[in-house]
Amino acid sequence: MTGLTTPARTPDAPGDPGARGALDAPVTPGAARPTTPEHLDAVARRAATAAELIAARPDAERAAWLDAVADALDAARDDLVPIADAETRLGTARLTGEVARTTGQLRLFAEVVRDGGWREIVIDHADPAAVPPRPELRRMLVAVGPVAVYSASNFPFAFSVAGGDTASALAAGCPVVVKAHSGHPLLSDATAAVVSAALKTAGAPDGTFALVHGRGAGERLVAHPAIRAAGFTGSLSGGRALFDLASGRPDPIPFHGELGSVNPVVVTRAAVAARGAGLAAGLAASFTLGSGQFCTKPGVVFVPAGAGFEALVAESVAGASAGPLLTDRIQAAFPLGLARLADDPAVEVVASGRPSDGAPTPVVLATDASEIAKRPSALLEECFGPMTLLARYRGDDDLLAALRAVGGSLTATLHAEPDDDVSTLVPVLASVAGRVLFDGWPTGVAVTWSQHHGGPWPASTSAHTSVGATAIRRFLRPVAYQDAPERLLPPVLRDAALAGVPRRVDGVAVV
Amino acid sequence: MTGLTTPARTPDAPGDPGARGALDAPVTPGAARPTTPEHLDAVARRAATAAELIAARPDAERAAWLDAVADALDAARDDLVPIADAETRLGTARLTGEVARTTGQLRLFAEVVRDGGWREIVIDHADPAAVPPRPELRRMLVAVGPVAVYSASNFPFAFSVAGGDTASALAAGCPVVVKAHSGHPLLSDATAAVVSAALKTAGAPDGTFALVHGRGAGERLVAHPAIRAAGFTGSLSGGRALFDLASGRPDPIPFHGELGSVNPVVVTRAAVAARGAGLAAGLAASFTLGSGQFCTKPGVVFVPAGAGFEALVAESVAGASAGPLLTDRIQAAFPLGLARLADDPAVEVVASGRPSDGAPTPVVLATDASEIAKRPSALLEECFGPMTLLARYRGDDDLLAALRAVGGSLTATLHAEPDDDVSTLVPVLASVAGRVLFDGWPTGVAVTWSQHHGGPWPASTSAHTSVGATAIRRFLRPVAYQDAPERLLPPVLRDAALAGVPRRVDGVAVV
Repeated sequence: MTGLTTPARTPDAPGDPGARGALDAPVTPGAARPTTPEHLDAVARRAATAAELIAARPDAERAAWLDAVADALDAARDDLVPIADAETRLGTARLTGEVARTTGQLRLFAEVVRDGGWREIVIDHADPAAVPPRPELRRMLVAVGPVAVYSASNFPFAFSVAGGDTASALAAGCPVVVKAHSGHPLLSDATAAVVSAALKTAGAPDGTFALVHGRGAGERLVAHPAIRAAGFTGSLSGGRALFDLASGRPDPIPFHGELGSVNPVVVTRAAVAARGAGLAAGLAASFTLGSGQFCTKPGVVFVPAGAGFEALVAESVAGASAGPLLTDRIQAAFPLGLARLADDPAVEVVASGRPSDGAPTPVVLATDASEIAKRPSALLEECFGPMTLLARYRGDDDLLAALRAVGGSLTATLHAEPDDDVSTLVPVLASVAGRVLFDGWPTGVAVTWSQHHGGPWPASTSAHTSVGATAIRRFLRPVAYQDAPERLLPPVLRDAALAGVPRRVDGVAVV
Repeated sequence: MTGLTTPARTPDAPGDPGARGALDAPVTPGAARPTTPEHLDAVARRAATAAELIAARPDAERAAWLDAVADALDAARDDLVPIADAETRLGTARLTGEVARTTGQLRLFAEVVRDGGWREIVIDHADPAAVPPRPELRRMLVAVGPVAVYSASNFPFAFSVAGGDTASALAAGCPVVVKAHSGHPLLSDATAAVVSAALKTAGAPDGTFALVHGRGAGERLVAHPAIRAAGFTGSLSGGRALFDLASGRPDPIPFHGELGSVNPVVVTRAAVAARGAGLAAGLAASFTLGSGQFCTKPGVVFVPAGAGFEALVAESVAGASAGPLLTDRIQAAFPLGLARLADDPAVEVVASGRPSDGAPTPVVLATDASEIAKRPSALLEECFGPMTLLARYRGDDDLLAALRAVGGSLTATLHAEPDDDVSTLVPVLASVAGRVLFDGWPTGVAVTWSQHHGGPWPASTSAHTSVGATAIRRFLRPVAYQDAPERLLPPVLRDAALAGVPRRVDGVAVV
């Protein structure tokens, strides 16, 4: 969905202080002024205080806060979208849709909170006759404490200040400190103002939400003792640096990062024969969507050698164009990354799209699957922008070997016909990716209860999703109460509060 | 429950190659011969192959493997217990009980597998009318792949070769490579032989289970590319070293470690008045249980200043004795650790138990809660063996400040009377520990669906339990199938297989 994945193209990687691209957008003095260490410390301490206050309030209040933030953002949409467009060049239509996605996420998490299943309540009644006698135990999940959220560049609403990480952390009961992305500092400030005002009006305690700016603040944030977990969407290099800081603390904290994904697609010979033109058109639309700046962009497409699919792709791509990339820096990096790959003796250019002013031209390269099996890191270095790589396979063996070499991805996609024998292939796709798609394209990530947006490293750094209802699980930890008198149990664990809450009692799941 | 937590007393910490204490037990030549790098590599590769074979089998088969291992261990009990006693000195009665606990754990996980709820299946049907249209998504948890398990010294059955980590990893569908604890190499080999034979007879693929020996093998294991997660119970220093190896890999893997715990207990003034003698007797029994070698040993007990509780404790402890510690090395370290603490000007000895030959004498020290708030690391360095520290508090303020300074623990315990106002105290206990007990003692960890054996760092390195049904979650990752034709779905995700499986469908929990 998101993510800058090549260091040279990443405006917000540690080691790259303050880079914001050569934006023409107006910059308010001080808008992105780096947060001082003293201010950061104060913010984190306020968050720790807020965590205790939030824990003492009913869950339903928190659900109302999420709805209030969603309403406020919808109301501010027409003010925010122009700021976003000036800073990201993504266009009014796309950005307006992204606001709706963002407020939809907030409302989904309000629904998740109200459902109560997220607490994973498990109750075992006492059994004095057991050997040894069993106590009563009531287990539930509780908020971990203040969460650091690192915004992404390519979804300035949905994976940014009020995006999915913020929504799921607030839903869990965790105060949030957002590190603004340097690509859209003004939008970050404007969004934060809307979020803060809505939370305050809705009754959330001071310290529930804050925004900080600057690389140093981002690094200090993940190392601050008050911060208990982090959510991140961005580059492999930037994410790895923060992951290492989180893991290297005296008290390591979980770092939930989405660091990049190649998103392999497999097209069978029969699928090309049955609907090759449609597949070529679908591919052209998918890898150019958002100008190829989606983390779910199909980065490598395994196509049957000699089946004529390349010609169909060339035909479809000829008419495709892309919009400008997020920043001048990213835009300047695209042809360089492309050239590095196209200069490889095993790679050729097989299709080009329509050039347009101030925007990159879509390009399709091709190589052999056997080359990818041999040199995956050289050929699959993720190229942020409208390009994809076709990989010709001759049989199952070289296809499977190449797929295993691709490494962890957010998605893996299969285009096959009913008579294809793909019984070996599907488990391999599931072993390299967190979402396996059939006859679709990976760009587009539904925000639902069932979504999984994550995958083996480096797609994500933890076994959790960053999109969809179960993203809340990242910011929770279990607590069990043993033989607690009812008056001392948290209200949600008392018998009177359990009706209708999905839970497990004496080993049996009940709703 | 388990865990050696002070470097000097830890026989199996990295940096301490081959230490096995000066056991008098017979040592078969080669029993603990360090596993060579070549053998380790072969073992890990076989585990990777086994992972794919296991994934293709029905869950019910795996449940039967767990039952078969449990039956085989029960049948071999009278052979295994003497080996364990010779290596650990824990005594036949305790060790016989521990075998029952171990086979009970295996059978619980068979039950967990059959229940199916562990897959956390979530299904959202397609909604073509939604904007944008929603695909069908079916999400479930699947095995992460081969798991490294690091045995503990103090539970040679229940947290060792066939212990909870192994049971929960096998239940998840993960092949297991166990690093034997150097404190009980012969028992490890003997147990592994029983497990391997039972798995083979039950039909598990080659590579499902293996045992390795030696510090170097343990370090290489967590760094091996085929290993996808680790479970550990042991010392802070040893666990931290392995955690750093796991986190420092090119592809970091989750490291689920239990590294030590102080387990604070709070006794209110009213509780002392109402039942002081009983509490003193309970404390004496708890901190000397297993000779004070339980990870859930109450290590610090907050007592009201001037309420006379110390005299009651002295009376109870006078009659208490302990058995020999696990190894001569641990036994030699105990008086040194004790002396270091007793020499602190803020600490005094307030009670001693009955000396016995070849075993440490139980000791109770005391200090002021305010000292703990000021110097927690000096006063709370965990001392493996039969000692505990009373901390006198004068009011809520110094009690709460000291509790917050204690840091993450597996447990926190409260002894209070119905009229006590503990509404501020209970949330603080829940913030520092994974299990909050009322009017009980933390030693003794029920193996149930609801158990949580974990807590904030360093009690555990992840937000999961190592005891009880949900321990399986450590070795799973989500996969979502988007618009999969039914024939290409894994069988457990097909409609026909869902009846009776706890799941969520279109946002609603059903069973």
